Amino acid sequence: MQIQDVVLTPVAFADPPLLNVMGVHEPFALRSVVQVICEDGVVGLGESYGDAAFLGEVRKVLPRLRGHDVFDLPGLRRIVGETLAGTVLTDEHGLIGGFSIRKTLSSVFSLFEVACLDAQGHALGLPVADLLGGKARDEVEFSAYLFYKYAAHLDGSEDSWGEIVTPEQLVGSARRMIDEYGFRSIKLKGGVFEPRREVEGIHALAEAFGGHPLRIDPNAAWTPDTGIAVAKELDGVLEYLEDPTPGIEGMAKVAGHANMPLATNMCVVDQGDIEPAFRAHAIGVLLSDHHFWGGMRATQALSVTCESFGVGLSMHSNSHLGISLAAMVHVAAATPHLTYACDTHWPWKSEDVIAPGALEFREGAVAVPDKPGLGIELDPDALAKANERFVRCGLTKRDDVTYMRKFEPGFEPNTARW
Amino acid sequence: MQIQDVVLTPVAFADPPLLNVMGVHEPFALRSVVQVICEDGVVGLGESYGDAAFLGEVRKVLPRLRGHDVFDLPGLRRIVGETLAGTVLTDEHGLIGGFSIRKTLSSVFSLFEVACLDAQGHALGLPVADLLGGKARDEVEFSAYLFYKYAAHLDGSEDSWGEIVTPEQLVGSARRMIDEYGFRSIKLKGGVFEPRREVEGIHALAEAFGGHPLRIDPNAAWTPDTGIAVAKELDGVLEYLEDPTPGIEGMAKVAGHANMPLATNMCVVDQGDIEPAFRAHAIGVLLSDHHFWGGMRATQALSVTCESFGVGLSMHSNSHLGISLAAMVHVAAATPHLTYACDTHWPWKSEDVIAPGALEFREGAVAVPDKPGLGIELDPDALAKANERFVRCGLTKRDDVTYMRKFEPGFEPNTARW
Repeated sequence: MQIQDVVLTPVAFADPPLLNVMGVHEPFALRSVVQVICEDGVVGLGESYGDAAFLGEVRKVLPRLRGHDVFDLPGLRRIVGETLAGTVLTDEHGLIGGFSIRKTLSSVFSLFEVACLDAQGHALGLPVADLLGGKARDEVEFSAYLFYKYAAHLDGSEDSWGEIVTPEQLVGSARRMIDEYGFRSIKLKGGVFEPRREVEGIHALAEAFGGHPLRIDPNAAWTPDTGIAVAKELDGVLEYLEDPTPGIEGMAKVAGHANMPLATNMCVVDQGDIEPAFRAHAIGVLLSDHHFWGGMRATQALSVTCESFGVGLSMHSNSHLGISLAAMVHVAAATPHLTYACDTHWPWKSEDVIAPGALEFREGAVAVPDKPGLGIELDPDALAKANERFVRCGLTKRDDVTYMRKFEPGFEPNTARW
Repeated sequence: MQIQDVVLTPVAFADPPLLNVMGVHEPFALRSVVQVICEDGVVGLGESYGDAAFLGEVRKVLPRLRGHDVFDLPGLRRIVGETLAGTVLTDEHGLIGGFSIRKTLSSVFSLFEVACLDAQGHALGLPVADLLGGKARDEVEFSAYLFYKYAAHLDGSEDSWGEIVTPEQLVGSARRMIDEYGFRSIKLKGGVFEPRREVEGIHALAEAFGGHPLRIDPNAAWTPDTGIAVAKELDGVLEYLEDPTPGIEGMAKVAGHANMPLATNMCVVDQGDIEPAFRAHAIGVLLSDHHFWGGMRATQALSVTCESFGVGLSMHSNSHLGISLAAMVHVAAATPHLTYACDTHWPWKSEDVIAPGALEFREGAVAVPDKPGLGIELDPDALAKANERFVRCGLTKRDDVTYMRKFEPGFEPNTARW
């Protein structure tokens, strides 16, 4: 089935002032939405990053896709590779680790791979999970992804979550999220305050939600020694400790003294990281992400590598919309080894580009849509609005640091700062 | 699409007296053919081992498959796992390495997985390669698989190949095989004579076929020291050295002194072997085999693990028929990292259960069928004859050792004998 046209729509959606090691989320998160239009009126949807550099590379590929068979994914990867010709995309936040030619290629390819799989599913009348070998589970579990946050953006605009900086506020936000979505696992985005304060936050969550698996992710804000100290302090409390410190060597050092598994979406982000990290026993859980691991099929295959080395599998999240959630649900459902609840920023947003109803959280999990393809539909009005918002907001990249300096002029982002 | 019935047909086909470390091939090779019969007249084909122990396990699974959805492969694996309940199948030749619960489950599952993928392809009007993500190549290259052999079976029945025991006869057999099939890579099954004589055979092949990649596979007949000596002797001559010695530790010892990659289908035959072998740098090329690696999808995923650790990928062969060749071609075509020419016993057989014409060798390669499913059809008369042959031949397992003792009464199979 040939591709007749591809439409790329950059979009923006409102994002609360969530805090992390690099600063604070800006008022809008940027995403790209792609529609792969095929013969017989079949349309496949994909979603990925929305920064100008990424969009620039994606735009280079678009004219080369006309006439390509949506079932020929190796050919699609060749086209993307030839078009990008060794480009290395970087970002300033570094929250998804290092950069490489392969990671760039994998990221751009993934946007189209998801859309092609959606189109395949529509053409064949099959859910994408079935194209990936079938569902290993009927629903995919997600975690409650807690953030410290400011009460309002710089312009004074507030959201319903209010300020979250104390243990009590943290527990309150967790209670609301669990009440609304039914999450079991709870993850705290750390790296914002001194480790002692964040450890107190975890203890407060442990006390309030006994039996709920807990995770903390300081985005490599700590030295290896601090990582080891926190691992000892939270022994028996955490399900896993995510990216306590930068780099494979540092992670391996912490892992050697930690009883819980270390997880990462920062030190293993590309196929080239696997061998050194696995040889060093640096991690116990890999947070996969089809957006930069080369698509849904590559994420599935990655799970086999992890399984062979006794490394567990979860899923990383950036701020995202419904197309990406659907893709995450299908690939996680079709990947037996992906047994850890996945991350999602879903509760922090209030709008989308897909028609509502296809993806519902029940008891912390999303049922795999059983309709063809990803099982979702674009809402054209919502897409138009989100694109208008993109144009108007004027943002061209994610820059939590500069925005943070408007709140705290002397702010310096720094991994391994504590 | 639900399975309505599954028909299992054990078959036998004539096999020449090919020599290996365990003895000599008996007059007939045994295989199983499965037909998965679905709604709407769709039938999926699978092929695998035909020994009684394997057939016994497969028969236990059959009654549980009725009503199962052919698109639900994780569910199929669950059914097989529950039915087998921890069974460990063994063989006496050990030519495909060790035994485990998982390898047993993977082997039985694979037979049905291939048939389900064939059925999926027929239902959707798509070649299996497209179901596996699409073709990375349009044709799959195979190697000329040379054997030392006797001129006749014990009953005096001869074949057109005659005796192959001298370097001249070896070169002659290679010339015929290359003339008929166009193979580039040449592989010699060794472990039959003293290493010096087999090295002479390789030198004769190198002289006769300059530029053709050469391989030798003594099936672990040598000690590590002999493996090291042969690796030095054949430095610059061999493309790879396959299973010179038994076990991961021994292979790692040889690998540390060999300039060419070591290949294996004996020391890495199950997911559990990957971590120790890769950590020990024991191998440079893995000979995958969908029959015991858990099917076509698992073989594809295995390639990503290999790629991540810089291990190349080829494909192992047992004596097989056209259904297995079709499956090998589809999975190899859809696996970009599978770049080494694959093994096949194809030239050594003269009959099949599939209708002729679907799989042709041109310049050593088989074009990927572009028809739905595996792109092949059963020949019902040929299947009936092959089943009759199975019943009449009276063989219930592969036993090269006992048969060899009828030629050489004192024969002792022995890995690491030299």
